[in-house]
Amino acid sequence: MMGKFLHGPGVPARLLKQMAFLLEMDKLKTVLRRTPLLDNSRPETDAEHCWELAVMAIVLAEYAEPPIDLGHVLKLVAVHDIVEIDAGDTFLYDDSRVLDQLERERDAAARLFALLPDDQACAFRALWDEFIASETPEARFAKALDRLQPLLHNYFSGGGTWKTPGVNSAIVHQRKRVIGLASPTLWRYGEHLLARAVEDGLLAPPPD
Amino acid sequence: MMGKFLHGPGVPARLLKQMAFLLEMDKLKTVLRRTPLLDNSRPETDAEHCWELAVMAIVLAEYAEPPIDLGHVLKLVAVHDIVEIDAGDTFLYDDSRVLDQLERERDAAARLFALLPDDQACAFRALWDEFIASETPEARFAKALDRLQPLLHNYFSGGGTWKTPGVNSAIVHQRKRVIGLASPTLWRYGEHLLARAVEDGLLAPPPD
Repeated sequence: MMGKFLHGPGVPARLLKQMAFLLEMDKLKTVLRRTPLLDNSRPETDAEHCWELAVMAIVLAEYAEPPIDLGHVLKLVAVHDIVEIDAGDTFLYDDSRVLDQLERERDAAARLFALLPDDQACAFRALWDEFIASETPEARFAKALDRLQPLLHNYFSGGGTWKTPGVNSAIVHQRKRVIGLASPTLWRYGEHLLARAVEDGLLAPPPD
Repeated sequence: MMGKFLHGPGVPARLLKQMAFLLEMDKLKTVLRRTPLLDNSRPETDAEHCWELAVMAIVLAEYAEPPIDLGHVLKLVAVHDIVEIDAGDTFLYDDSRVLDQLERERDAAARLFALLPDDQACAFRALWDEFIASETPEARFAKALDRLQPLLHNYFSGGGTWKTPGVNSAIVHQRKRVIGLASPTLWRYGEHLLARAVEDGLLAPPPD
């Protein structure tokens, strides 16, 4: 298999393993999320979403409480969805798929990161585990951006996934409030958009 | 215009400017590059390309000579193609468009970064200027990845943009050799792939 990535003079075997991993990464461009582009022309891809989180991290880092190491957040957001190459995107409001999400994603992590040399496989797994555990300030901030981004897209594209049957503002509020653990300011803005979304008829109010 | 991004209690005016910029960023997902996905199903988008460079930076940082500040490289690659929202992707082998590329991109930078608060407009412009000037080790490495990524895609998708009339291995070699300024190891691999591409009939040999 590694021959495919072309041994050659002065080319370390380690680099060929890294290339095998990097070429596999291309598949994240074919994993579609539920979130629409703002012009509603199509859903975004996972790879596009990951890039958007990087730009959000750079622009919004100042709102992190406590302050974060931006370089580390950029690593977390670059890596956080790689498992979806195998596990697919799990829609936040699809309770049946959320149930076995972690198991599917752990299998994916096991296969995908093992393409890398051992030390880097460990490093990537550690980044992904850190993101999932959401205990460090950097992981909490990365998770906050990951929850804020579709909220922005839904509001500014005119509803997006909020139109899914069964979704209402109480459910959305509950899934999004982790934003406040990383940044009270960003969560105030998020809550403000959610309130406006209900007023504007983009999001169903809580059921009686 | 800013009202569109929704003033509200406890929402800083600064944050609304940042949101205006971030929402504009979504357009980078609609800018198509010439580079095909590895499965040849479609061209990649600029946003996807930027994410791929981030993962490449994390995996390949060890080959940078001199060593680089990875966090800074991740900022450079996240920002390096934002100007293409207005200026479009300029194909490396389209000499007529390469001529006025910098002028088109400077106009784009002036409009797009001005959406941000002044301090961040300056910071983003400084990152883009650094990438273009390619004088720091981080910018040289980011540029090397930007040149290596389509080389990988062309080889492993079976030719890609190398099939464009007028493109041959001498021209490709000349445009790609900047990779060696940031990493002799990565350039050895790149040269090896180019030689194999000619042998495999994926890339025309130099003209007589």
